[in-house]
Amino acid sequence: MTERPPHGSARPGGRTARTRAAVLAAAYEELDRDSFAALTLDRLARRSGVHVSTIRRRWRTVEGVVVELLAERGSTLPTPDTGDFRRDLTQLTQAIADFNNALRNRNVLQGLLAAAAHDPRVEEIVRAAFVRRIEEVTLIARQAVERGEIPEDTDPREVIAALAAPLYYRVLILRGSIDDRLVHTTVETTYQAARSGVFVRKGEREG
Amino acid sequence: MTERPPHGSARPGGRTARTRAAVLAAAYEELDRDSFAALTLDRLARRSGVHVSTIRRRWRTVEGVVVELLAERGSTLPTPDTGDFRRDLTQLTQAIADFNNALRNRNVLQGLLAAAAHDPRVEEIVRAAFVRRIEEVTLIARQAVERGEIPEDTDPREVIAALAAPLYYRVLILRGSIDDRLVHTTVETTYQAARSGVFVRKGEREG
Repeated sequence: MTERPPHGSARPGGRTARTRAAVLAAAYEELDRDSFAALTLDRLARRSGVHVSTIRRRWRTVEGVVVELLAERGSTLPTPDTGDFRRDLTQLTQAIADFNNALRNRNVLQGLLAAAAHDPRVEEIVRAAFVRRIEEVTLIARQAVERGEIPEDTDPREVIAALAAPLYYRVLILRGSIDDRLVHTTVETTYQAARSGVFVRKGEREG
Repeated sequence: MTERPPHGSARPGGRTARTRAAVLAAAYEELDRDSFAALTLDRLARRSGVHVSTIRRRWRTVEGVVVELLAERGSTLPTPDTGDFRRDLTQLTQAIADFNNALRNRNVLQGLLAAAAHDPRVEEIVRAAFVRRIEEVTLIARQAVERGEIPEDTDPREVIAALAAPLYYRVLILRGSIDDRLVHTTVETTYQAARSGVFVRKGEREG
Protein backbone atom coordinates (compact mmCIF):
# COMPACT_ATOMS: atom_id res chain seq x y z
CA MET A 1 0.00 0.00 0.00
CA THR A 2 3.00 2.29 0.33
CA GLU A 3 4.34 1.83 -3.20
CA ARG A 4 1.73 4.13 -4.79
CA PRO A 5 3.45 5.20 -8.01
CA PRO A 6 3.53 8.96 -8.50
CA HIS A 7 1.50 9.98 -11.49
CA GLY A 8 3.54 10.08 -14.70
CA SER A 9 6.73 8.93 -13.02
CA ALA A 10 7.16 5.92 -15.27
CA ARG A 11 9.40 5.74 -18.29
CA PRO A 12 7.32 5.48 -21.47
CA GLY A 13 6.97 1.80 -22.21
CA GLY A 14 7.76 0.92 -18.60
CA ARG A 15 5.57 -1.30 -16.48
CA THR A 16 3.55 1.59 -15.06
CA ALA A 17 2.89 2.97 -18.51
CA ARG A 18 1.81 -0.46 -19.75
CA THR A 19 -0.52 -0.87 -16.78
CA ARG A 20 -2.05 2.53 -17.43
CA ALA A 21 -2.53 1.85 -21.14
CA ALA A 22 -4.11 -1.54 -20.43
CA VAL A 23 -6.58 -0.17 -17.90
CA LEU A 24 -7.60 2.84 -20.02
CA ALA A 25 -8.02 0.59 -23.07
CA ALA A 26 -10.12 -1.83 -21.02
CA ALA A 27 -12.34 1.02 -19.83
CA TYR A 28 -12.78 2.23 -23.39
CA GLU A 29 -13.75 -1.24 -24.58
CA GLU A 30 -16.18 -1.80 -21.72
CA LEU A 31 -17.89 1.52 -22.43
CA ASP A 32 -18.39 0.50 -26.02
CA ARG A 33 -20.43 -2.50 -24.86
CA ASP A 34 -22.23 -1.22 -21.88
CA SER A 35 -23.15 1.92 -19.98
CA PHE A 36 -21.04 3.69 -17.40
CA ALA A 37 -23.32 2.34 -14.68
CA ALA A 38 -22.25 -1.23 -15.50
CA LEU A 39 -18.55 -0.44 -15.23
CA THR A 40 -16.84 -1.78 -12.10
CA LEU A 41 -13.24 -2.08 -10.97
CA ASP A 42 -13.63 -5.86 -11.18
CA ARG A 43 -14.65 -5.70 -14.82
CA LEU A 44 -11.71 -3.42 -15.56
CA ALA A 45 -9.40 -5.85 -13.81
CA ARG A 46 -10.76 -8.82 -15.74
CA ARG A 47 -10.49 -7.14 -19.12
CA SER A 48 -7.13 -5.46 -18.58
CA GLY A 49 -5.41 -8.31 -16.76
CA VAL A 50 -4.27 -5.78 -14.14
CA HIS A 51 -5.00 -6.74 -10.55
CA VAL A 52 -7.97 -4.94 -9.03
CA SER A 53 -5.91 -3.74 -6.05
CA THR A 54 -3.44 -2.09 -8.43
CA ILE A 55 -6.26 -0.29 -10.20
CA ARG A 56 -7.79 0.78 -6.91
CA ARG A 57 -4.46 2.02 -5.61
CA ARG A 58 -3.80 4.16 -8.64
CA TRP A 59 -7.25 5.52 -9.55
CA ARG A 60 -9.31 4.86 -6.41
CA THR A 61 -12.60 4.57 -8.35
CA VAL A 62 -14.10 3.87 -11.75
CA GLU A 63 -14.70 7.62 -12.04
CA GLY A 64 -10.98 8.21 -11.57
CA VAL A 65 -10.17 5.94 -14.50
CA VAL A 66 -12.80 7.49 -16.72
CA VAL A 67 -11.78 11.08 -15.98
CA GLU A 68 -8.27 10.18 -17.11
CA LEU A 69 -9.71 8.49 -20.19
CA LEU A 70 -11.74 11.59 -21.05
CA ALA A 71 -8.72 13.84 -20.65
CA GLU A 72 -6.63 11.59 -22.90
CA ARG A 73 -9.19 11.07 -25.67
CA GLY A 74 -10.54 14.60 -25.55
CA SER A 75 -7.13 16.18 -25.93
CA THR A 76 -6.45 14.19 -29.11
CA LEU A 77 -8.94 16.45 -30.89
CA PRO A 78 -6.80 18.90 -32.87
CA THR A 79 -7.47 22.64 -32.96
CA PRO A 80 -8.28 23.54 -36.57
CA ASP A 81 -6.11 26.22 -38.17
CA THR A 82 -7.18 26.63 -41.79
CA GLY A 83 -6.74 30.39 -42.02
CA ASP A 84 -10.49 30.85 -42.39
CA PHE A 85 -12.80 31.42 -39.42
CA ARG A 86 -15.88 29.69 -40.79
CA ARG A 87 -13.86 26.70 -41.96
CA ASP A 88 -12.18 26.45 -38.55
CA LEU A 89 -15.58 26.52 -36.84
CA THR A 90 -16.88 23.83 -39.17
CA GLN A 91 -13.94 21.52 -38.56
CA LEU A 92 -14.13 21.96 -34.80
CA THR A 93 -17.88 21.34 -34.78
CA GLN A 94 -17.46 18.23 -36.91
CA ALA A 95 -14.75 16.95 -34.58
CA ILE A 96 -16.95 17.45 -31.50
CA ALA A 97 -19.80 15.75 -33.36
CA ASP A 98 -17.69 12.74 -34.35
CA PHE A 99 -16.37 12.42 -30.82
CA ASN A 100 -19.80 12.51 -29.19
CA ASN A 101 -21.47 10.33 -31.80
CA ALA A 102 -19.28 7.42 -30.73
CA LEU A 103 -21.37 5.54 -28.19
CA ARG A 104 -18.51 4.98 -25.79
CA ASN A 105 -17.58 8.63 -25.66
CA ARG A 106 -21.19 9.51 -24.95
CA ASN A 107 -21.18 6.90 -22.21
CA VAL A 108 -18.05 8.45 -20.74
CA LEU A 109 -19.59 11.92 -20.74
CA GLN A 110 -22.96 10.89 -19.35
CA GLY A 111 -21.34 8.72 -16.74
CA LEU A 112 -19.06 11.52 -15.59
CA LEU A 113 -21.92 13.98 -15.30
CA ALA A 114 -23.84 11.39 -13.31
CA ALA A 115 -20.85 10.99 -11.02
CA ALA A 116 -20.51 14.77 -10.78
CA ALA A 117 -24.05 15.04 -9.41
CA HIS A 118 -23.01 12.74 -6.57
CA ASP A 119 -19.46 13.90 -5.91
CA PRO A 120 -18.20 17.51 -5.88
CA ARG A 121 -14.64 16.34 -6.62
CA VAL A 122 -15.73 14.70 -9.85
CA GLU A 123 -17.79 17.79 -10.64
CA GLU A 124 -14.72 19.99 -10.31
CA ILE A 125 -12.61 17.64 -12.45
CA VAL A 126 -15.21 17.60 -15.23
CA ARG A 127 -15.63 21.37 -15.12
CA ALA A 128 -11.89 21.96 -15.20
CA ALA A 129 -11.47 19.55 -18.13
CA PHE A 130 -14.01 21.45 -20.21
CA VAL A 131 -12.65 24.87 -19.26
CA ARG A 132 -9.16 23.73 -20.25
CA ARG A 133 -10.42 22.32 -23.53
CA ILE A 134 -12.32 25.53 -24.34
CA GLU A 135 -9.22 27.55 -23.55
CA GLU A 136 -7.15 25.50 -26.01
CA VAL A 137 -9.49 26.03 -28.95
CA THR A 138 -10.00 29.75 -28.31
CA LEU A 139 -7.06 30.00 -30.71
CA ILE A 140 -9.66 29.84 -33.49
CA ALA A 141 -11.40 33.00 -32.29
CA ARG A 142 -8.18 34.83 -31.42
CA GLN A 143 -6.79 34.24 -34.89
CA ALA A 144 -10.07 35.37 -36.46
CA VAL A 145 -9.69 38.62 -34.52
CA GLU A 146 -6.12 39.01 -35.74
CA ARG A 147 -7.19 38.44 -39.34
CA GLY A 148 -9.96 41.01 -38.89
CA GLU A 149 -12.72 38.49 -39.54
CA ILE A 150 -14.44 39.25 -36.25
CA PRO A 151 -14.34 42.42 -34.11
CA GLU A 152 -11.62 43.28 -31.63
CA ASP A 153 -12.58 42.74 -27.99
CA THR A 154 -14.47 39.58 -28.95
CA ASP A 155 -14.43 37.23 -25.97
CA PRO A 156 -12.93 34.06 -27.48
CA ARG A 157 -14.34 31.80 -24.76
CA GLU A 158 -17.86 32.97 -25.47
CA VAL A 159 -17.42 32.10 -29.13
CA ILE A 160 -16.32 28.55 -28.36
CA ALA A 161 -19.01 28.03 -25.72
CA ALA A 162 -21.65 29.21 -28.22
CA LEU A 163 -20.36 26.65 -30.70
CA ALA A 164 -20.22 23.77 -28.24
CA ALA A 165 -23.53 24.41 -26.46
CA PRO A 166 -26.01 23.18 -29.11
CA LEU A 167 -23.99 19.99 -29.55
CA TYR A 168 -24.02 19.10 -25.86
CA TYR A 169 -27.66 20.12 -25.56
CA ARG A 170 -28.47 17.57 -28.25
CA VAL A 171 -26.47 14.84 -26.54
CA LEU A 172 -27.32 15.51 -22.89
CA ILE A 173 -30.84 16.92 -22.97
CA LEU A 174 -32.42 15.68 -26.19
CA ARG A 175 -30.37 12.45 -25.90
CA GLY A 176 -29.82 12.29 -29.65
CA SER A 177 -26.83 12.22 -31.98
CA ILE A 178 -25.32 15.25 -33.71
CA ASP A 179 -26.39 15.22 -37.35
CA ASP A 180 -25.19 17.27 -40.34
CA ARG A 181 -28.07 19.68 -39.99
CA LEU A 182 -27.10 20.56 -36.42
CA VAL A 183 -23.46 20.99 -37.42
CA HIS A 184 -24.59 23.42 -40.12
CA THR A 185 -26.97 25.51 -37.99
CA THR A 186 -24.48 25.62 -35.11
CA VAL A 187 -21.62 26.87 -37.27
CA GLU A 188 -23.79 29.49 -39.00
CA THR A 189 -25.35 30.72 -35.76
CA THR A 190 -21.98 31.15 -34.07
CA TYR A 191 -20.30 32.60 -37.14
CA GLN A 192 -22.93 35.27 -37.66
CA ALA A 193 -23.12 36.19 -33.98
CA ALA A 194 -19.34 36.52 -33.75
CA ARG A 195 -19.14 38.56 -36.97
CA SER A 196 -21.83 40.96 -35.83
CA GLY A 197 -20.16 41.56 -32.47
CA VAL A 198 -22.48 39.72 -30.06
CA PHE A 199 -19.45 38.42 -28.15
CA VAL A 200 -17.69 41.78 -27.88
CA ARG A 201 -17.07 42.88 -24.32
CA LYS A 202 -16.42 46.58 -24.42
CA GLY A 203 -14.42 48.15 -21.64
CA GLU A 204 -14.49 44.94 -19.70
CA ARG A 205 -11.50 42.92 -18.70
CA GLU A 206 -11.46 39.29 -19.62
CA GLY A 207 -11.95 37.43 -16.34
CA MET B 1 -50.38 -3.72 -3.40
CA THR B 2 -53.46 -3.93 -5.64
CA GLU B 3 -54.95 -0.54 -4.76
CA ARG B 4 -52.44 1.46 -6.85
CA PRO B 5 -54.42 4.64 -7.57
CA PRO B 6 -54.60 5.51 -11.25
CA HIS B 7 -52.79 8.73 -11.97
CA GLY B 8 -55.00 11.79 -11.68
CA SER B 9 -58.01 9.82 -10.52
CA ALA B 10 -58.46 11.79 -7.32
CA ARG B 11 -60.79 14.69 -6.83
CA PRO B 12 -58.86 17.95 -6.37
CA GLY B 13 -58.46 18.43 -2.65
CA GLY B 14 -59.10 14.75 -2.01
CA ARG B 15 -56.79 12.55 0.02
CA THR B 16 -54.79 11.39 -3.01
CA ALA B 17 -54.24 14.96 -4.13
CA ARG B 18 -53.13 15.97 -0.65
CA THR B 19 -50.71 13.04 -0.51
CA ARG B 20 -49.27 13.98 -3.88
CA ALA B 21 -48.87 17.65 -2.91
CA ALA B 22 -47.21 16.73 0.39
CA VAL B 23 -44.70 14.37 -1.22
CA LEU B 24 -43.80 16.76 -4.06
CA ALA B 25 -43.40 19.63 -1.60
CA ALA B 26 -41.20 17.45 0.61
CA ALA B 27 -39.00 16.55 -2.35
CA TYR B 28 -38.69 20.20 -3.29
CA GLU B 29 -37.67 21.15 0.25
CA GLU B 30 -35.15 18.32 0.54
CA LEU B 31 -33.54 19.33 -2.75
CA ASP B 32 -33.11 22.85 -1.48
CA ARG B 33 -30.98 21.53 1.37
CA ASP B 34 -29.12 18.69 -0.16
CA SER B 35 -28.21 17.06 -3.47
CA PHE B 36 -30.29 14.57 -5.37
CA ALA B 37 -27.92 11.83 -4.27
CA ALA B 38 -28.93 12.34 -0.64
CA LEU B 39 -32.65 12.02 -1.38
CA THR B 40 -34.25 8.76 -0.24
CA LEU B 41 -37.81 7.50 0.04
CA ASP B 42 -37.35 7.43 3.81
CA ARG B 43 -36.44 11.11 3.91
CA LEU B 44 -39.44 11.94 1.73
CA ALA B 45 -41.66 9.94 4.08
CA ARG B 46 -40.28 11.67 7.17
CA ARG B 47 -40.68 15.17 5.75
CA SER B 48 -44.06 14.68 4.10
CA GLY B 49 -45.70 12.60 6.81
CA VAL B 50 -46.80 10.14 4.12
CA HIS B 51 -45.96 6.50 4.80
CA VAL B 52 -42.99 5.20 2.84
CA SER B 53 -45.00 2.27 1.46
CA THR B 54 -47.56 4.69 0.03
CA ILE B 55 -44.81 6.67 -1.68
CA ARG B 56 -43.22 3.51 -3.02
CA ARG B 57 -46.57 2.23 -4.30
CA ARG B 58 -47.33 5.40 -6.19
CA TRP B 59 -43.91 6.50 -7.50
CA ARG B 60 -41.76 3.38 -7.13
CA THR B 61 -38.51 5.39 -6.78
CA VAL B 62 -37.09 8.76 -5.85
CA GLU B 63 -36.58 9.34 -9.56
CA GLY B 64 -40.30 8.83 -10.13
CA VAL B 65 -41.14 11.55 -7.60
CA VAL B 66 -38.61 13.96 -9.05
CA VAL B 67 -39.67 13.46 -12.65
CA GLU B 68 -43.20 14.43 -11.61
CA LEU B 69 -41.81 17.41 -9.72
CA LEU B 70 -39.87 18.56 -12.78
CA ALA B 71 -42.94 18.24 -14.99
CA GLU B 72 -45.03 20.24 -12.53
CA ARG B 73 -42.54 23.03 -11.82
CA GLY B 74 -41.28 23.23 -15.40
CA SER B 75 -44.74 23.63 -16.86
CA THR B 76 -45.47 26.58 -14.59
CA LEU B 77 -43.11 28.63 -16.76
CA PRO B 78 -45.40 30.70 -18.97
CA THR B 79 -44.86 31.06 -22.72
CA PRO B 80 -44.19 34.78 -23.35
CA ASP B 81 -46.48 36.47 -25.84
CA THR B 82 -45.53 40.15 -26.02
CA GLY B 83 -46.10 40.64 -29.74
CA ASP B 84 -42.37 41.16 -30.29
CA PHE B 85 -39.99 38.31 -31.15
CA ARG B 86 -36.91 39.65 -29.41
CA ARG B 87 -38.85 40.53 -26.28
CA ASP B 88 -40.43 37.07 -26.22
CA LEU B 89 -36.97 35.48 -26.53
CA THR B 90 -35.66 37.65 -23.71
CA GLN B 91 -38.52 36.79 -21.37
CA LEU B 92 -38.23 33.08 -22.08
CA THR B 93 -34.46 33.11 -21.57
CA GLN B 94 -34.85 35.00 -18.31
CA ALA B 95 -37.46 32.50 -17.11
CA ILE B 96 -35.18 29.54 -17.90
CA ALA B 97 -32.33 31.37 -16.17
CA ASP B 98 -34.37 32.07 -13.03
CA PHE B 99 -35.58 28.47 -12.93
CA ASN B 100 -32.11 26.96 -13.25
CA ASN B 101 -30.45 29.46 -10.94
CA ALA B 102 -32.53 28.12 -8.05
CA LEU B 103 -30.32 25.51 -6.42
CA ARG B 104 -33.09 22.99 -5.94
CA ASN B 105 -34.13 23.10 -9.58
CA ARG B 106 -30.51 22.56 -10.61
CA ASN B 107 -30.38 19.64 -8.21
CA VAL B 108 -33.51 18.19 -9.79
CA LEU B 109 -32.07 18.50 -13.28
CA GLN B 110 -28.63 17.15 -12.45
CA GLY B 111 -30.11 14.33 -10.44
CA LEU B 112 -32.42 13.31 -13.24
CA LEU B 113 -29.63 13.31 -15.80
CA ALA B 114 -27.58 11.19 -13.42
CA ALA B 115 -30.49 8.79 -13.10
CA ALA B 116 -30.93 8.80 -16.89
CA ALA B 117 -27.36 7.58 -17.35
CA HIS B 118 -28.25 4.56 -15.22
CA ASP B 119 -31.80 3.86 -16.33
CA PRO B 120 -33.17 4.05 -19.90
CA ARG B 121 -36.71 4.58 -18.59
CA VAL B 122 -35.67 7.72 -16.75
CA GLU B 123 -33.73 8.79 -19.83
CA GLU B 124 -36.87 8.53 -21.96
CA ILE B 125 -38.95 10.42 -19.41
CA VAL B 126 -36.43 13.28 -19.23
CA ARG B 127 -36.11 13.45 -23.00
CA ALA B 128 -39.89 13.46 -23.48
CA ALA B 129 -40.32 16.18 -20.84
CA PHE B 130 -37.90 18.48 -22.66
CA VAL B 131 -39.34 17.74 -26.09
CA ARG B 132 -42.83 18.53 -24.79
CA ARG B 133 -41.62 21.74 -23.18
CA ILE B 134 -39.84 22.84 -26.37
CA GLU B 135 -42.99 22.10 -28.36
CA GLU B 136 -45.04 24.35 -26.05
CA VAL B 137 -42.83 27.38 -26.43
CA THR B 138 -42.41 27.04 -30.20
CA LEU B 139 -45.42 29.35 -30.20
CA ILE B 140 -42.91 32.19 -29.90
CA ALA B 141 -41.24 31.28 -33.19
CA ARG B 142 -44.48 30.43 -34.98
CA GLN B 143 -45.95 33.82 -34.11
CA ALA B 144 -42.75 35.56 -35.21
CA VAL B 145 -43.17 33.84 -38.59
CA GLU B 146 -46.79 34.97 -38.78
CA ARG B 147 -45.81 38.56 -37.99
CA GLY B 148 -43.12 38.40 -40.67
CA GLU B 149 -40.29 38.94 -38.18
CA ILE B 150 -38.50 35.75 -39.22
CA PRO B 151 -38.64 33.86 -42.54
CA GLU B 152 -41.30 31.36 -43.50
CA ASP B 153 -40.23 27.72 -43.24
CA THR B 154 -38.28 28.51 -40.09
CA ASP B 155 -38.14 25.36 -37.96
CA PRO B 156 -39.59 26.61 -34.65
CA ARG B 157 -38.04 23.77 -32.63
CA GLU B 158 -34.57 24.67 -33.85
CA VAL B 159 -35.10 28.26 -32.70
CA ILE B 160 -36.06 27.19 -29.20
CA ALA B 161 -33.27 24.61 -28.94
CA ALA B 162 -30.75 27.27 -30.01
CA LEU B 163 -32.04 29.51 -27.24
CA ALA B 164 -32.01 26.84 -24.55
CA ALA B 165 -28.67 25.23 -25.40
CA PRO B 166 -26.24 27.87 -24.07
CA LEU B 167 -28.16 28.00 -20.80
CA TYR B 168 -28.00 24.26 -20.17
CA TYR B 169 -24.38 24.14 -21.33
CA ARG B 170 -23.57 26.68 -18.62
CA VAL B 171 -25.42 24.70 -15.96
CA LEU B 172 -24.49 21.13 -16.91
CA ILE B 173 -21.01 21.44 -18.42
CA LEU B 174 -19.49 24.60 -16.98
CA ARG B 175 -21.45 24.02 -13.74
CA GLY B 176 -22.11 27.72 -13.30
CA SER B 177 -25.15 29.95 -12.97
CA ILE B 178 -26.81 31.85 -15.82
CA ASP B 179 -25.85 35.52 -15.55
CA ASP B 180 -27.19 38.59 -17.35
CA ARG B 181 -24.38 38.54 -19.86
CA LEU B 182 -25.27 34.99 -20.96
CA VAL B 183 -28.95 35.92 -21.20
CA HIS B 184 -27.98 38.81 -23.47
CA THR B 185 -25.61 36.90 -25.78
CA THR B 186 -28.01 33.96 -26.02
CA VAL B 187 -30.97 36.12 -27.02
CA GLU B 188 -28.94 38.10 -29.57
CA THR B 189 -27.32 35.01 -31.09
CA THR B 190 -30.65 33.25 -31.53
CA TYR B 191 -32.47 36.36 -32.71
CA GLN B 192 -29.94 37.16 -35.41
CA ALA B 193 -29.67 33.57 -36.61
CA ALA B 194 -33.44 33.23 -36.83
CA ARG B 195 -33.80 36.58 -38.63
CA SER B 196 -31.16 35.69 -41.19
CA GLY B 197 -32.75 32.34 -41.98
CA VAL B 198 -30.31 29.90 -40.38
CA PHE B 199 -33.23 27.79 -39.13
CA VAL B 200 -35.09 27.72 -42.46
CA ARG B 201 -35.65 24.22 -43.79
CA LYS B 202 -36.41 24.58 -47.47
CA GLY B 203 -38.36 21.83 -49.17
CA GLU B 204 -38.12 19.67 -46.09
CA ARG B 205 -41.00 18.42 -44.08
CA GLU B 206 -40.99 19.15 -40.40
CA GLY B 207 -40.37 15.78 -38.73
